[in-house]
Amino acid sequence: MVTSSTPRGGRRPGATSTRAAILAAARAAFFERSYDGATIRGIAAAAAVDPALVLHYYGSKRGLFAAAMDLPFDPGDVVAAALAAPREERGLALARAALTAWEAPGSGEVLIGLMRSAVSDEASAARLREFLTEAVLVPVAASLEGPRAMLVASLAMSHLMGVLFARHIARVGPLADASLAGLVPLLGAALQQYFDAAPEAPA
Amino acid sequence: MVTSSTPRGGRRPGATSTRAAILAAARAAFFERSYDGATIRGIAAAAAVDPALVLHYYGSKRGLFAAAMDLPFDPGDVVAAALAAPREERGLALARAALTAWEAPGSGEVLIGLMRSAVSDEASAARLREFLTEAVLVPVAASLEGPRAMLVASLAMSHLMGVLFARHIARVGPLADASLAGLVPLLGAALQQYFDAAPEAPA
Repeated sequence: MVTSSTPRGGRRPGATSTRAAILAAARAAFFERSYDGATIRGIAAAAAVDPALVLHYYGSKRGLFAAAMDLPFDPGDVVAAALAAPREERGLALARAALTAWEAPGSGEVLIGLMRSAVSDEASAARLREFLTEAVLVPVAASLEGPRAMLVASLAMSHLMGVLFARHIARVGPLADASLAGLVPLLGAALQQYFDAAPEAPA
Repeated sequence: MVTSSTPRGGRRPGATSTRAAILAAARAAFFERSYDGATIRGIAAAAAVDPALVLHYYGSKRGLFAAAMDLPFDPGDVVAAALAAPREERGLALARAALTAWEAPGSGEVLIGLMRSAVSDEASAARLREFLTEAVLVPVAASLEGPRAMLVASLAMSHLMGVLFARHIARVGPLADASLAGLVPLLGAALQQYFDAAPEAPA
């Protein structure tokens, strides 16, 4: 018997088809109800499994969305890891983590697909907006304090989206050709400036 | 008799249809040959006018492209105006100029259309990349010195594109709702950091 200790484990008989049923139900729910409107409970019911099993496999609604959209990583995990760095290193940590995640095989195509959908129709834009708000904006803003926390978090996220667009979609030469080693310190300093523009939230 | 002293003047008989012919020829050329491959001379020939008249009406290939794409402003003019500010105020000047230009009636829709085309097909992406390189990247990089000039200029431009995407396309709440007065100082500081990351070019 195979036991699973990680969300990506679980190779007992039927696990693969169960996961496929969950992902299919999740895609349908995210498309019909957008991100905010979809629930783990509803998706579990549609896939005829226990909600606890969905959480066991995917950790959270955020993780389930990333898996349903074929993202090889959960942007929420990338952000959480970067925010674990000391405050004065978070810009650099976020730049390095985001740029590295995009270089992973398959990531670029999926992120470009999400961006392409978002510019093509409002429903896709809403889905992406709601997901990014939960996975990126809220955790970044929660690390800060004061009335500008959400705005500086949004500006930092917008910069990451712009780099993704300019480097991987518009393929603007100097950015498309730059190495991670060249990019990370410059982008990190710009992101750090946003972290420094609002007081830190008490631990 | 009406005389014209500005590129947008010229209301003598036939001027309107001449301008329409030039714009039609320009659109065809930009779509067939992309931005870099199109020439004022070739566009003038296709419209059966003198190249000097094209320059009289539109100032430059850059200005002609902006007019042909229905942009209510030429991004190159926005950048040039911002670069005329003292070095330590350029980030703020560029943030204010870009955000203000996007708010102008009709601007947002056209810019979103250009971005939408760029994510949809490679030919549009190439056209946008070539235009932005000439209108934004090269002048910004020319105001700086050293091996990182083009890279920091690209990062600054990518941030502007990201704000455009997050504020007007994905409509991420805090950014979509922010006032110019709230946004300009924060975005300006981030852009200024890029200007400060490379030495200034000698005047």
